[in-house]
Amino acid sequence: MAQRAVVLLSGGLDSATVLAVARSQRIACHTLAVHYGQRHSAELEAARRVSAALGAVEHRQMGVDLAGIGGSALTDPALAVPEHVTTDIPITYVPARNTLLLSLALGWAEVLDAQEVFIGVNSMDYSGYPDCRSEFIAAFDQLAGLATRAGVSGRPIHIRAPLQQLSKAQIIRLGTDLGLDYAQTVSCYQATADGLACGRCDACRLRQTGFQAAGVPDPTRYV
Amino acid sequence: MAQRAVVLLSGGLDSATVLAVARSQRIACHTLAVHYGQRHSAELEAARRVSAALGAVEHRQMGVDLAGIGGSALTDPALAVPEHVTTDIPITYVPARNTLLLSLALGWAEVLDAQEVFIGVNSMDYSGYPDCRSEFIAAFDQLAGLATRAGVSGRPIHIRAPLQQLSKAQIIRLGTDLGLDYAQTVSCYQATADGLACGRCDACRLRQTGFQAAGVPDPTRYV
Repeated sequence: MAQRAVVLLSGGLDSATVLAVARSQRIACHTLAVHYGQRHSAELEAARRVSAALGAVEHRQMGVDLAGIGGSALTDPALAVPEHVTTDIPITYVPARNTLLLSLALGWAEVLDAQEVFIGVNSMDYSGYPDCRSEFIAAFDQLAGLATRAGVSGRPIHIRAPLQQLSKAQIIRLGTDLGLDYAQTVSCYQATADGLACGRCDACRLRQTGFQAAGVPDPTRYV
Repeated sequence: MAQRAVVLLSGGLDSATVLAVARSQRIACHTLAVHYGQRHSAELEAARRVSAALGAVEHRQMGVDLAGIGGSALTDPALAVPEHVTTDIPITYVPARNTLLLSLALGWAEVLDAQEVFIGVNSMDYSGYPDCRSEFIAAFDQLAGLATRAGVSGRPIHIRAPLQQLSKAQIIRLGTDLGLDYAQTVSCYQATADGLACGRCDACRLRQTGFQAAGVPDPTRYV
């Protein structure tokens, strides 16, 4: 039986690299983008584009009205997106986001009888995001083994986070080596409808610094 | 500081009992109903009714398009609702449902700075539902401690499942002792818009058997 996986795809740089990694291992990938009240749809379009470009089996998009519980500049229009890098937990933190994303991916993996769920968390992303840490991923892997029919049958679905220990520069070098075109991805917290990045928000700055450190030309299209 | 909690409320018998338990402990309860593509809205109306009747601080409803990933008679219109009790994992099983419900509740609990999340899983419900077992709840409690800012700050949000070890009859006696009016709840998988139960599906049969075993008159309104 061919290896099958659900790959969480945000449209950003990290998750696109994860998909490239999974595809390089000849895994049949079903990609999932979750719309949780983001302010723009450029990243959802990017996810669709990346999924097709990398030969995923199919791409699905799911909606969750996380805006209803508030608490993040990414989902609450009343909060401004900050334009500086912080070491505290940033205001762009979405409550329990990765728990929710992994739950949705786990449900779909169970329906598909997939063996794995891939997610693009990494140490660099953990500038205060508790749910990007390896302890969190390990705990969810444990949970996944108990939560599903597959787990009960002795075939637990596993969570894979291949970027966990990589820096942004290492991720960019990895994706570049795998032939990934990062111009197709959108990282900016406030990209235009056409996918142009602001160049000033936290996500843009981390991305710019990553390309510089990787020694790879930055293909990002800025406003 | 007053104790604050998020209580998952489906509109059914179990979660209404959980809310009655939490309210009896004078916990300030924020109730959450999740709409995940159910066929009818009678249970969502019931959740709203029960929340108000038991004096919750507020009631919220969130939508998730779980139907997009298929795999359950509750969310996939192409699958029929079975009318017999089975010992295997039933077709009404929603993939990763409790993982998803707890994720949403966890996110809201974090925003509210609540200390606990209540869920109405119990041993009786585990007629093959892996995510109703106590091992699953313990694993999610562990995850919650790692997933949130509160957990990082040494104040992990805990998962409480006060019905875990109770039979349906014991649950009904508990709620009745706490003054809960079960006529306000809807358990039926295919209730009418007015909240009338079919009396034939798995959920109706479990409920009927529960009232009989508890020696409490069944207040359910049937078609």
